[in-house]
Amino acid sequence: MGHITLTTDFGTRQGSHAVMHGVISSIAPGAVVTDLTHHIRPQDIREAAFVIDTSAWYFPAGTVHVVVCDPGVGTQRRAMAAEVGTQRFVTPDNGTLSAVLARADGQGWATSFVHLDRPEYWRPAVSNTFHGRDVFAPVAAHLSEGVRLDEIGTPFDDPVRISMPGARRTDRGVEGEVIYIDDFGSAICSVLPADIAELGEVAVELCGATIEGMVRTFGDSPYGADIPIALWDSSGYLLVSENNGTGGKVIRPRPGDPVLVRPLRQPARSHPARIR
Amino acid sequence: MGHITLTTDFGTRQGSHAVMHGVISSIAPGAVVTDLTHHIRPQDIREAAFVIDTSAWYFPAGTVHVVVCDPGVGTQRRAMAAEVGTQRFVTPDNGTLSAVLARADGQGWATSFVHLDRPEYWRPAVSNTFHGRDVFAPVAAHLSEGVRLDEIGTPFDDPVRISMPGARRTDRGVEGEVIYIDDFGSAICSVLPADIAELGEVAVELCGATIEGMVRTFGDSPYGADIPIALWDSSGYLLVSENNGTGGKVIRPRPGDPVLVRPLRQPARSHPARIR
Amino acid sequence: MGHITLTTDFGTRQGSHAVMHGVISSIAPGAVVTDLTHHIRPQDIREAAFVIDTSAWYFPAGTVHVVVCDPGVGTQRRAMAAEVGTQRFVTPDNGTLSAVLARADGQGWATSFVHLDRPEYWRPAVSNTFHGRDVFAPVAAHLSEGVRLDEIGTPFDDPVRISMPGARRTDRGVEGEVIYIDDFGSAICSVLPADIAELGEVAVELCGATIEGMVRTFGDSPYGADIPIALWDSSGYLLVSENNGTGGKVIRPRPGDPVLVRPLRQPARSHPARIR
Repeated sequence: MGHITLTTDFGTRQGSHAVMHGVISSIAPGAVVTDLTHHIRPQDIREAAFVIDTSAWYFPAGTVHVVVCDPGVGTQRRAMAAEVGTQRFVTPDNGTLSAVLARADGQGWATSFVHLDRPEYWRPAVSNTFHGRDVFAPVAAHLSEGVRLDEIGTPFDDPVRISMPGARRTDRGVEGEVIYIDDFGSAICSVLPADIAELGEVAVELCGATIEGMVRTFGDSPYGADIPIALWDSSGYLLVSENNGTGGKVIRPRPGDPVLVRPLRQPARSHPARIR
Repeated sequence: MGHITLTTDFGTRQGSHAVMHGVISSIAPGAVVTDLTHHIRPQDIREAAFVIDTSAWYFPAGTVHVVVCDPGVGTQRRAMAAEVGTQRFVTPDNGTLSAVLARADGQGWATSFVHLDRPEYWRPAVSNTFHGRDVFAPVAAHLSEGVRLDEIGTPFDDPVRISMPGARRTDRGVEGEVIYIDDFGSAICSVLPADIAELGEVAVELCGATIEGMVRTFGDSPYGADIPIALWDSSGYLLVSENNGTGGKVIRPRPGDPVLVRPLRQPARSHPARIR
Repeated sequence: MGHITLTTDFGTRQGSHAVMHGVISSIAPGAVVTDLTHHIRPQDIREAAFVIDTSAWYFPAGTVHVVVCDPGVGTQRRAMAAEVGTQRFVTPDNGTLSAVLARADGQGWATSFVHLDRPEYWRPAVSNTFHGRDVFAPVAAHLSEGVRLDEIGTPFDDPVRISMPGARRTDRGVEGEVIYIDDFGSAICSVLPADIAELGEVAVELCGATIEGMVRTFGDSPYGADIPIALWDSSGYLLVSENNGTGGKVIRPRPGDPVLVRPLRQPARSHPARIR
């Protein structure tokens, strides 16, 4: 009994995402289908790439992740399936796997890719605007039922990759950017612990605010509500939130905003975090 | 192991929809339950009728679709179950199946209907305000477990039908209306390919904009972002969107707005679509 | 095959809730996982306590309900699992079970509690900010797979309880407060039928409006749209809505607003409800 997840920008009002459940269930009746999210910002491939990479690795080995953020649906953009480490993916070949593949590179995981060019694994009639229903869902269902990657398409080795936000060392410290605003209004930033390991105690600058020091978790800050804090998110990224975990009240970061992590010049005070 | 879908106007904040999962699971532990949508506009039976008809046919034969958009809950309005072609439905008898039945008429599919008048298939205590939990979910679970339609209620043959938006030929061309605004902000209009087959190349007029020609898919338009385009939606209806698939920026159509499809008087230019 | 529900304040945009599905599926592949809600107001323990208590009892016996509204994640707050009547719960020990336990007290149901202090039932690496993924989901999966409560933690008997809104008799009548605004905009109030049984026919005062008499269901009011009505909700609480079930248009109650139910001094008119 296979597991399939769905990540799209379809929203959940109209039932399009549910139609994908129906198509999958018609081919793979025992599959467990989890809605990972249908609230990717419309057409935002970079956000889709970020979300699938921070989620996919927690699913059972062999899970098939369908990722459909597809501004080029119905055009010449190709469709693909992939095996990356223990997980499988079905998606337009438009960059949605960029973060997944960067992680695979870093970890030395095996990867293989096929272009989806075998209509016998699709729905009989393929629309021009909804390949999630007509191509990706049926392919995922067939993979989940045991069809092999090399049966479902033709191997290739150069999936489209888009640039993902990263961190770089500068004179001022380590500079990154806001990747994502989470459901609490907190900013997930493109800085990892290894990026700032040499800096010792740090200050974080974002949207005009300076946060001195990092805290371990939301409840660790001795301050009242709505004071910006910096900590390591559960995905490993630098998170700028506000005390106690509900962001967006004092500073209002947006994806793409620059963040600076720099050495805390002044010796640390007794408080773990301070805004000035 | 049966499949059941849920379509309601309950939203997903309060857990009411999940309670229906619990009731179903208590009766039919192996059933797969898919949330089709819980975001029908409150009390909008026409929207429910549209959404269930564009979604139900993609599910396995025998799936039971529960549709609860029920302003008359607890009053004398009757409750019903139906078999329409390969699918089954459980719903208030208030018009939510109007589009499903129009399609069945067109396709010549078999239909049968029963009124739900056998409390032994309901929860023991039935509230006045939540028949989704107390009547429709348990009936769906029993049907999914193999109870026959004629066991669960009394046959009848005149379910309530409400008028659904359609298309009509006029002097100016073919006139329809906006049925639904999808999650991308695009307008789904009550015009099908057969309605305009005689017109040849067309122009589409909506909300003061004139769109010359139709495109095949979102990425097909040669124009920049936010230019209105017309195309055939994956459900078969006329869709007015904006280049690349995110509508609602230039024109802001609403359900009920009139749309006109008329012959494109001028010979087509080199571009497939043009707004003026 | 066990049933597990998830109630959190995570939202559904980022996929955090889905990651919990993945973790559960990795340990308990056959478990059915239902998203009860992920839209608890951020950090609002009282709302979580209300929602889980109005929903849990409709699930099959032995269902494991995971409730994560956890401002104290990563601090010294303890984590717990509980058996309460036929249902099981896994949650921070921060008051989220207060309404569940009040109901158990009233019904005389058996209860037992353990603190989650056995890391062998957690994910190997536990983050400081996402115990839903690292502690609560795996514990729920193990319980669902047959691990006993006393294997998964150390018994204790004093879970944190917070005060929940109630009703009290005063000179003016029975006073309560708004607990929750539902997805229709209606106000669920902390008044139960037993609280006002002695009052006979009543008037309800909320946000400056006086509603004379109660109706049986939404469609029972003889008035047009948008007239406030009072009735008994399907959860048993006093509900103030507007005719036909879509609230928030005429009066805009908020959680915490006081509500008064008082004897209807004037003899009832021919209409069941009247606003003045």
